[in-house]
Amino acid sequence: MEFIKPRIYSGLRDRLPEQMNYRGFVVSKLQSLFEKYGFEPLETPAMEFYDILTGKYGEEAENLIYRLDYRDGRTLALRYDLTVPLSRVIAMNAELVRPIFKRYQIQQVWRGERPQRGRYREFTQCDIDAIGSASMLHDAEIIAAIYEMMIGFGFHQFEILINNRKILDGMVKYAGVDDKLKEVCRSIDKLEKIGSDQVRQELAKSDVSVQSIGKIFAVIEIDGNHETVLADLEKIIGDVAQEGVDELREVRSYLSKLGIDEGCYRFDPALARGLDYYTGPVFEVVVKDASIGSVVGGGRWDTLIGQYTGNNVPAVGTSFGLERLIDSMEKLNLLPQIRTKTQVLVVPFNTELISQSLSFLAELRSAGVNSEIYGEPKSFRQTFGYASRKGIPLALVVAPDELANGQLAIRNMETRDQVVCSVDCFVEKVQKMLAEL
Amino acid sequence: MEFIKPRIYSGLRDRLPEQMNYRGFVVSKLQSLFEKYGFEPLETPAMEFYDILTGKYGEEAENLIYRLDYRDGRTLALRYDLTVPLSRVIAMNAELVRPIFKRYQIQQVWRGERPQRGRYREFTQCDIDAIGSASMLHDAEIIAAIYEMMIGFGFHQFEILINNRKILDGMVKYAGVDDKLKEVCRSIDKLEKIGSDQVRQELAKSDVSVQSIGKIFAVIEIDGNHETVLADLEKIIGDVAQEGVDELREVRSYLSKLGIDEGCYRFDPALARGLDYYTGPVFEVVVKDASIGSVVGGGRWDTLIGQYTGNNVPAVGTSFGLERLIDSMEKLNLLPQIRTKTQVLVVPFNTELISQSLSFLAELRSAGVNSEIYGEPKSFRQTFGYASRKGIPLALVVAPDELANGQLAIRNMETRDQVVCSVDCFVEKVQKMLAEL
Repeated sequence: MEFIKPRIYSGLRDRLPEQMNYRGFVVSKLQSLFEKYGFEPLETPAMEFYDILTGKYGEEAENLIYRLDYRDGRTLALRYDLTVPLSRVIAMNAELVRPIFKRYQIQQVWRGERPQRGRYREFTQCDIDAIGSASMLHDAEIIAAIYEMMIGFGFHQFEILINNRKILDGMVKYAGVDDKLKEVCRSIDKLEKIGSDQVRQELAKSDVSVQSIGKIFAVIEIDGNHETVLADLEKIIGDVAQEGVDELREVRSYLSKLGIDEGCYRFDPALARGLDYYTGPVFEVVVKDASIGSVVGGGRWDTLIGQYTGNNVPAVGTSFGLERLIDSMEKLNLLPQIRTKTQVLVVPFNTELISQSLSFLAELRSAGVNSEIYGEPKSFRQTFGYASRKGIPLALVVAPDELANGQLAIRNMETRDQVVCSVDCFVEKVQKMLAEL
Repeated sequence: MEFIKPRIYSGLRDRLPEQMNYRGFVVSKLQSLFEKYGFEPLETPAMEFYDILTGKYGEEAENLIYRLDYRDGRTLALRYDLTVPLSRVIAMNAELVRPIFKRYQIQQVWRGERPQRGRYREFTQCDIDAIGSASMLHDAEIIAAIYEMMIGFGFHQFEILINNRKILDGMVKYAGVDDKLKEVCRSIDKLEKIGSDQVRQELAKSDVSVQSIGKIFAVIEIDGNHETVLADLEKIIGDVAQEGVDELREVRSYLSKLGIDEGCYRFDPALARGLDYYTGPVFEVVVKDASIGSVVGGGRWDTLIGQYTGNNVPAVGTSFGLERLIDSMEKLNLLPQIRTKTQVLVVPFNTELISQSLSFLAELRSAGVNSEIYGEPKSFRQTFGYASRKGIPLALVVAPDELANGQLAIRNMETRDQVVCSVDCFVEKVQKMLAEL
């Protein structure tokens, strides 16, 4: 007989229980945070019509989007991010924006990329967006949520970089290369990674003149405290980027009222971000000690919804990459140890006692204690081995001798201590022992 | 300029915040229940290699599975259920079964079916399975979990139907139509829906003789209390189905120890279930007053994992259809009203007060109160309209006159009562008012 070889496509991963427990911890913290900030849950289908997904992404999409061919001849594809599906939802449900709609969305996205460290073909995005308002208030709120998330997860060495698309537009105008915005952004985005010499070389290769490169560097090398950076930007390219500078100044004033530590963010004129649908502030988070790239990125995207309806709807949001976040936390030892949620393993001494043990199991569960029964005809050694491997803290041993005296034994799997107690009060005893762990 | 028409493929649905709140309630209850029974979380990728998915499903798959063609020439497909991916995981990670592995999995599946009432192209399955043990203990445990789930969600008029694949095998042998198991099962599965006359007609069309049909009906019409049904089955087809009857008897004895109400389940020799990979007990739940088909179904599937490895691993599990469960609960009014999780809307009297209002907002959030700010320059009427529409219970009004006296106003959006309190203790006041809602 021929067997089907069990295998998984590269760039995809199964998530086994222990990882799922980490994941559950992180997701539920994110969810509480989002709800604390007034964002409401939304989910969209994995599949969207192909043209809806590719409308904005263009060329890149051809390579990266998974197409789905279905027998009725329609072409769909798996979503590539959560922003385009959100725009489609808003375009179809304008009544949601009365006058503002704040949603969070935690779902998988798929990209046909070559898998590598920190890059998967399937990964989970956790997005928050505020739709319907042009006020910088929401940009600040989203940066505040990012800040609280990073602090809440125990990150210390992180920095939120902030820039503005209008400043980038102003910069290329000032440098006389308006027509090369994309190329310039793509190059300066690599500054941290490849250094200024190589960025200059790249720009030269894109036919940017030496003089223009000088002007670009005069902008992206602006450094100093918040006010210095904004003042310098104003001085150098103020006339064409004043609006962008004003917006960041407004964001800053709101951030201080929201109690955000000034040292946790930096205005960085070299921050360009990959996607080209941003229209205002853009931001991303770099975890300095995890060297895993940005874990969070976002910005204002006021024109995407207009693609479907002709009417632009202002919007700002951010995306947390769940896998990268967890990878960074793992690296920095910020994840809690949650090996299993099972609290008690019920162990019948022999198969004859299984049936009777079930009523003890039912009693534990009625009291809200997570419990399972070990019904295999194995030695105690193997049984306790199972409990230890899984990390189950207590075992309830149902043995004939004790039972004849109306008693049960409770074993602490860590210390190997065993206490005996009456069948009438074993549940209370278990709860007490669990509370003391 | 040409716009991209925003639209969604039929059979797919967006889930807007209010629905998501229901959904979150149901999912988290299921999750707690699964964990109470000792099941641990697992997730697998949406995509599997095509041959892995179609190995068992065969013909049906060709029509129902969404293929994914990726440029590297490999053919993948979206998962069709959670049982085949689980089997693949076990085949690749044999060490998980030491000696038993109990997992739950709550993920989407995709089927290229014609969408109709209660049937979607994308839906969520909530599965629990116990892998590695042939003991009926686990079959009983899973039925007990189903029972507790139904009771926990407030269902009253439901029935768990139980049969055994070995009884079905025995029945067709007894009727002399071993070679027509599939056709017979397909027909008798419709008994409830189309009535016995039509089932007889269908069987006749499948070339089952009148005599055989008589024998089949002698089996599937067996009725009565648990013991009567099992005894009658034994009497009629005992020799070829004894093992199946014995298994159900064992299940029954465990169920009684687990405290399951005898009236909530019924041994039904006509229950066939659609999928053909079941090898032992099978079961499904019918909600009598919701007329929405079965919301839960499962059984023992001891041979599926062997397809990949050659070594069979015994397994039993069940699948809860989340959308159907929610649809039934909605129909029977069992869902709680959770319109929003936001507890307080902070309302600055005018745009000048936004900045100052942010510090009150930050204070509320620090105290764990879910809050958002309404920063739009609109009238109070519109602002309060927003809070009411969303179902936010309290508004914190930041107005210049009160503020000059060091005070803030808190408005109960339901009763429209408004109280004024000092800026020093508004958080406590808000918490008190929330507790009293």
